[in-house]
Amino acid sequence: MKDVQNHIVPGMTHWLSPNFFAFFPATVSSAAFIGEMLCNCFNSVGFNWLASPAMTELEMIVMDWLANMLKLPKTFMFSGTGGGVLQSTTSEAILCTLIAARDRKLDNIGVDNIGKLVVYGSDQTHSTYTKACKVAGIFPCNIRAVPTFIESDFALSPVVLRGIIEADIAAGLVPLFLCATVGTTSTTAVDPLSQLGQLAEEFNIWFHVDAAYGGSACICPEFRQYLDGIERANSLSLSPHKWLLSYLDCCCMWVREPNVLVKALSTNPEYLRNKRSEYDSVVDYKDWQIGTGRKFKSLRLWFVMRSYGVANLQSHIRSDVRMAKMFEGFVKSDPMFDVVVPRRFSLVCFRFNPNKEHESGYTEFLNKKLLDSVNSTGRIYMTHTIVSGIYMLRFAVGATFTEDRHVISAWKLIKESAIALLRKSVF
Amino acid sequence: MKDVQNHIVPGMTHWLSPNFFAFFPATVSSAAFIGEMLCNCFNSVGFNWLASPAMTELEMIVMDWLANMLKLPKTFMFSGTGGGVLQSTTSEAILCTLIAARDRKLDNIGVDNIGKLVVYGSDQTHSTYTKACKVAGIFPCNIRAVPTFIESDFALSPVVLRGIIEADIAAGLVPLFLCATVGTTSTTAVDPLSQLGQLAEEFNIWFHVDAAYGGSACICPEFRQYLDGIERANSLSLSPHKWLLSYLDCCCMWVREPNVLVKALSTNPEYLRNKRSEYDSVVDYKDWQIGTGRKFKSLRLWFVMRSYGVANLQSHIRSDVRMAKMFEGFVKSDPMFDVVVPRRFSLVCFRFNPNKEHESGYTEFLNKKLLDSVNSTGRIYMTHTIVSGIYMLRFAVGATFTEDRHVISAWKLIKESAIALLRKSVF
Repeated sequence: MKDVQNHIVPGMTHWLSPNFFAFFPATVSSAAFIGEMLCNCFNSVGFNWLASPAMTELEMIVMDWLANMLKLPKTFMFSGTGGGVLQSTTSEAILCTLIAARDRKLDNIGVDNIGKLVVYGSDQTHSTYTKACKVAGIFPCNIRAVPTFIESDFALSPVVLRGIIEADIAAGLVPLFLCATVGTTSTTAVDPLSQLGQLAEEFNIWFHVDAAYGGSACICPEFRQYLDGIERANSLSLSPHKWLLSYLDCCCMWVREPNVLVKALSTNPEYLRNKRSEYDSVVDYKDWQIGTGRKFKSLRLWFVMRSYGVANLQSHIRSDVRMAKMFEGFVKSDPMFDVVVPRRFSLVCFRFNPNKEHESGYTEFLNKKLLDSVNSTGRIYMTHTIVSGIYMLRFAVGATFTEDRHVISAWKLIKESAIALLRKSVF
Repeated sequence: MKDVQNHIVPGMTHWLSPNFFAFFPATVSSAAFIGEMLCNCFNSVGFNWLASPAMTELEMIVMDWLANMLKLPKTFMFSGTGGGVLQSTTSEAILCTLIAARDRKLDNIGVDNIGKLVVYGSDQTHSTYTKACKVAGIFPCNIRAVPTFIESDFALSPVVLRGIIEADIAAGLVPLFLCATVGTTSTTAVDPLSQLGQLAEEFNIWFHVDAAYGGSACICPEFRQYLDGIERANSLSLSPHKWLLSYLDCCCMWVREPNVLVKALSTNPEYLRNKRSEYDSVVDYKDWQIGTGRKFKSLRLWFVMRSYGVANLQSHIRSDVRMAKMFEGFVKSDPMFDVVVPRRFSLVCFRFNPNKEHESGYTEFLNKKLLDSVNSTGRIYMTHTIVSGIYMLRFAVGATFTEDRHVISAWKLIKESAIALLRKSVF
């Protein structure tokens, strides 16, 4: 333990620091901590129902509960005709649904036509989507990243997408999969699910919604609109390890047709065969994921949901959004700074722009300097992005222990650093 | 907590019970428990070096340490020319190396030829291998499961394999990947790595060794022979969550050419770009795995290795093997039972065969009855397998708290149940 203190801690990036405003926060809670300790205490390996019945059944219950909190249609619930599963990461969730979609399509058109399958996302879709598509054997030349624009807040345009799909079909290709995002990583853009879902239905495309970050906010009525149209999706993923206090790694995935998923991912070796799986149609979660072994992760979510309750979880989301709003207010009220993209959740994308220039190399240079200068103090940690050529700073509020005073100090530090930078520079 | 006691615990399969002899055990230790608690306390997300430097660096150290314990060649170590990474499961490890192999091959022959790629394993290779191959877009008709036989202890025969490879090449197909196993799931068979490695080199096939279970034993000199020839492998996976006391989920994977892996799996979105990744050639583990996010898993292994030391870890392995040997002795000394496959590690494959019949339906029927009867007492838990048409019972010793007395009681129960079954039966 002394070595942890002396050799590990000094070399870490402290994701749980209240002054962590980088990437998206990974949130925690005592409730989930106890859930995870229990999971380890049991160390059960729940690859199928028989290997640990309560483990499978609690996961089914918890997935339905969260689906209810999100007001998902019954078609995604075990109590309806669908169901959910806990994956490690969004990458895995996307890969699993993609394989389900791919294999159903190839059953129709023949495996030899794998080179004709085309997948769609926007240039704001998480990089892991492209990676999952490549892993699944989609030809790199058939992965479309539809360009987005600042005028439409970097959302995927159904009109542009339709044109691309039609061109692909005209070229003899076969549209397979569309991934829309609720809360993109760069700027928390939200793609228009309803219209995209209609398009996907029209062209018989598997429609996946990646709500890794933004989905959690949708437990609040005022944010639920961002999931409108979800009834048209074939699958949905959302990562409570981001914003629902549940520790890494915990990604929820729901599907409308579990049998398509299971058909693509099932294995049936003799040493795992058992009467319950064969005759009682229990859920064997190994057939809902890439790997075989799996932990009792649902305990964490069960503990979080039961300890907090819906109202307190909503308050937790609202508190982060309120602090982000406060920060946005600081930026807006300062003529030397711009909010680059309208804030939607708890991320503020802004830049230092004292001369009110547009997309100039100088502004980028200045903001890079500012980011370096702020981060090198070690007092806070922020990251950046570039979207449509615009370099901007990302201030992501929501580390579990962040309070108003941390946001206020952070803004003070950013502003002081910016002024110091201006003074030092000969520009 | 009361609900956990009342509603969860009664519905679980108790993997940590000393009377658990099913599947392969998943072992634990106080050292790893503390390591995992610390991992959660930090909740760091180490997708790249910058996101948590100590996390990446400790993982590199720990992977080299374990490689040293296994006497792996330097070509698998960071201190040599290779390196290792922690994955969740063998499935992920195989999938990652397969994608690396696939993409390197497709770079040469063109992505259009994906349908020509052939992969090889035996009919004893874990079912997850076939699944990983399908996920990676290998055509199901190109996945070869080479038949194995009881005469050669269910090991993959290089002679048979050569014939199949040559036939594939003659048919215009392209051999891609060979997965050998050290300790198969059904019977702990060990494939002959040296000869298979030579074959793989000759045909320019990526050679992966899945030592998920058996690999851990190879920290003992008397078992190290099973890894002889590993220097010919391109990659190796081993799951300390099985036999090295480190909780789920923890699978070690080493590769000889990290650059091939990274080329296939790297992503480079703007929001993760940083100077260290670009100029200092640090390790960014997101490019060694399917997902982006990752936990600080190496703490567990670090704690285990430092708390136990090599000698105590060897004793732990030997103690399990000794207990399995004792059980094997019980079976051998009883004329009503057979040991079906020679015991190699800590799994005994046996059957009740009072009339010394061969592969008869009656023997299978009897052993199914015996398994049901034993398991239904709730006093121990065993599983079965069928290999080459022979139904057998698997007695896997090694749950963390198992002592001699548990093995002795288990044998007593099995024997009593068998006798009761004979008395009851009219056969």
